[in-house]
Amino acid sequence: MRVLAKDIAASARDGAGEVEMLGWVHRIRELGGVAFLILRDRSGLAQLVLGEKPGLTLESVIAVRGSPALNEKAPGGAELRVDSLTVLSEAAGDLPYQVNGDVSRVGIEAILDNRVLSLRSPRIRSIFKVQATIIEAFAAYLRAADFTEIKTSKLTAGSTEGGTNLFMVEYFDRKLFLAQSPQLYKEALVASGLERVFEIAPVYRAEKHDTPRHLNEYVSLDLEMAFIESERDLIELEKGLLAHIFEAVALKNGPDLAAWDASVPDPESTARAPTVAYEESLAIVNREAAKAGGARIFDINPEAERLLCEWSLREQGSDLVFVNEFPRRHRPFYTYPLETAGGGTAALTMSFDAIFRGLEITSGSRRHHDYRAFAEALPKFGIKPENMTAYLQILKYGCPPHGGFAIGLERLTQKILGLANVKEASLFPRDRRRVEP
Amino acid sequence: MRVLAKDIAASARDGAGEVEMLGWVHRIRELGGVAFLILRDRSGLAQLVLGEKPGLTLESVIAVRGSPALNEKAPGGAELRVDSLTVLSEAAGDLPYQVNGDVSRVGIEAILDNRVLSLRSPRIRSIFKVQATIIEAFAAYLRAADFTEIKTSKLTAGSTEGGTNLFMVEYFDRKLFLAQSPQLYKEALVASGLERVFEIAPVYRAEKHDTPRHLNEYVSLDLEMAFIESERDLIELEKGLLAHIFEAVALKNGPDLAAWDASVPDPESTARAPTVAYEESLAIVNREAAKAGGARIFDINPEAERLLCEWSLREQGSDLVFVNEFPRRHRPFYTYPLETAGGGTAALTMSFDAIFRGLEITSGSRRHHDYRAFAEALPKFGIKPENMTAYLQILKYGCPPHGGFAIGLERLTQKILGLANVKEASLFPRDRRRVEP
Repeated sequence: MRVLAKDIAASARDGAGEVEMLGWVHRIRELGGVAFLILRDRSGLAQLVLGEKPGLTLESVIAVRGSPALNEKAPGGAELRVDSLTVLSEAAGDLPYQVNGDVSRVGIEAILDNRVLSLRSPRIRSIFKVQATIIEAFAAYLRAADFTEIKTSKLTAGSTEGGTNLFMVEYFDRKLFLAQSPQLYKEALVASGLERVFEIAPVYRAEKHDTPRHLNEYVSLDLEMAFIESERDLIELEKGLLAHIFEAVALKNGPDLAAWDASVPDPESTARAPTVAYEESLAIVNREAAKAGGARIFDINPEAERLLCEWSLREQGSDLVFVNEFPRRHRPFYTYPLETAGGGTAALTMSFDAIFRGLEITSGSRRHHDYRAFAEALPKFGIKPENMTAYLQILKYGCPPHGGFAIGLERLTQKILGLANVKEASLFPRDRRRVEP
Repeated sequence: MRVLAKDIAASARDGAGEVEMLGWVHRIRELGGVAFLILRDRSGLAQLVLGEKPGLTLESVIAVRGSPALNEKAPGGAELRVDSLTVLSEAAGDLPYQVNGDVSRVGIEAILDNRVLSLRSPRIRSIFKVQATIIEAFAAYLRAADFTEIKTSKLTAGSTEGGTNLFMVEYFDRKLFLAQSPQLYKEALVASGLERVFEIAPVYRAEKHDTPRHLNEYVSLDLEMAFIESERDLIELEKGLLAHIFEAVALKNGPDLAAWDASVPDPESTARAPTVAYEESLAIVNREAAKAGGARIFDINPEAERLLCEWSLREQGSDLVFVNEFPRRHRPFYTYPLETAGGGTAALTMSFDAIFRGLEITSGSRRHHDYRAFAEALPKFGIKPENMTAYLQILKYGCPPHGGFAIGLERLTQKILGLANVKEASLFPRDRRRVEP
């Protein structure tokens, strides 16, 4: 029977007879005529004791049989005394870097070029253990709130977000585009009567900038719901959702957080995250910037996001801040206007961003649901209603007031662990230059 | 406080005071000076009683306030006596078909063209309620077995499955392809030490055929695991996984199954699904075909899949049958050979298909894990090792014996409910002609 590294001490205490262990050769050393081999499997590390030093390359995959025994000096308090060893896969001797060494010395390009090796470092692997928990917790929270999980097409005939940042696909004898978001489909399915939907799927942005906060392909945690009054309902939902995700990560990923010296916000601080209107947030940002002798800031740019979160942490004790009521010129055409606002591009909208530890992780809004009002609003965005028929069809036959938002999975992972670059939170990131592995 | 349609009777029994209901106008009728309005929300239907017939189009979205009251004659045994009604969204009067009528009279093209309306039929909606349960149960079963959920890039520099059925993407100044499967990445992550991984994501096949069993974009439920002996370990895993999915659907989707007069196999019949070697399965198929006076069958084609499942149901009482040990010529280059087999294209492999109710829903295999043996096997497939460097890198530094499989989400949904066409099980299907909505 196979015993995992994490269970070897329990196995020794239970007085198990011969057991099997399977894994990778992490390290070998000799001491006083005895060889110690550190075996690594998906659960962690375990010490094996062999009579003589085996002729093995590091990172080879082996199967061993032997007896578990308690030993205070062994990592985890137990070891396996090996009776037989079989090599399942011999590793080549030319490892591109020292896999069992300090991964913080390995540059990001080497980490991304060598995913098969870099993930063997527990610290790197922990990023994706946390990410898996985020996905699970996101879905679990929404299912409990009666949301239906959906899967929609990523091949679209046109843009749903406006703009031209689209990747073109040769689709038989025509051209399609990779979806920038499931926006149109989420809204269609809310209007179809599902009312509450969520999707976990890749989205594509053909943006040329190469920054530590952008990916050209990322996983969007999307949701949309009917019968909201304003974006404030969505902010409340996101607070509860994030608190649940943070709690799940704290519960399941203690060692992964420790590997990055990271912690998640407690539920109370998430609940008291402030919501600040766009204009007011710009005022706060400029007070903060002035204090630090910085230049005037005219928009919620990356520097503003950083300053807002510093302010929120200092004044409210929260890593999270919501900015709402963006002017129309900053938001997509489907965003619902604030009832009290006028008609120009400065008119405010029922929209919000969530900024977490200095980085925007969410954009959301209430959407237009009234056919006539929407058709009348389109020309303000330079859009002809006849080019928006798919959208108008959604609103034509009874569409409830609704809204939604999306969380960038990699950004949330990055900020939970304090990673310097969002690409570290993508298994196989795509940017302008990187298309492999 | 909002009360859902499914809770109106409980609300009446609890003697709730004034409550709110929100939803779509499903039907209106007048009887003896009283108007009855059937309201539809995400949970079902409820009867509203109004003093006079409201001037409302069908499918308009309304908010009503009133008192719940028990009434044996009402659907569900209760109704809402309405005090006030607000129209939230007025539906246009030109519905393209009768939304509250018998959806079985509506053709598949109209259903797919009008997703916002067709999903308002409980029967159509139930397809995607079942599908959501399949996704949830697939992930839950694998997480409990210590699998890690992964998200990998869908933009690849080359083919992973061989063949040329790839959609090309203009990616900045170069050409990439939409991934046919996460095969390369699954294997890389197993070899990275995660050992057990699964992914739920879209895959793309640029195949020109237009049949009731093909989609050009579908959701693949993929998994891969280390330290297997043969494809038989994977078959056992899939039996447990499918039994869990069937059980979850039976538990959560009773009304959805009823809407299609469908049922899921019981766990015992799934456990006793036969595994038949490729050659033997062809012999069975030809015996069955001969009995029915059919022509000789030379491959496990759609007709063979149908006959095999008829045989399995009759002889073993199982809707499910596994075919294993396919000849090499039928399987991709990464498939592991049966140890006992020779070197030609007729040589057998550690591979299998799962066929459920007459349709292949899974393809899987043990994979090559030995660097040298794999490099030597590539020329048999007409592949130069220098064109397979990404694959070889996975095997180079210690790769455990491993294998995996994928379940087509839409096909499984189709066969659970008995849908005539797999496109019915895709919210927004893509085929050679259909790219909208």
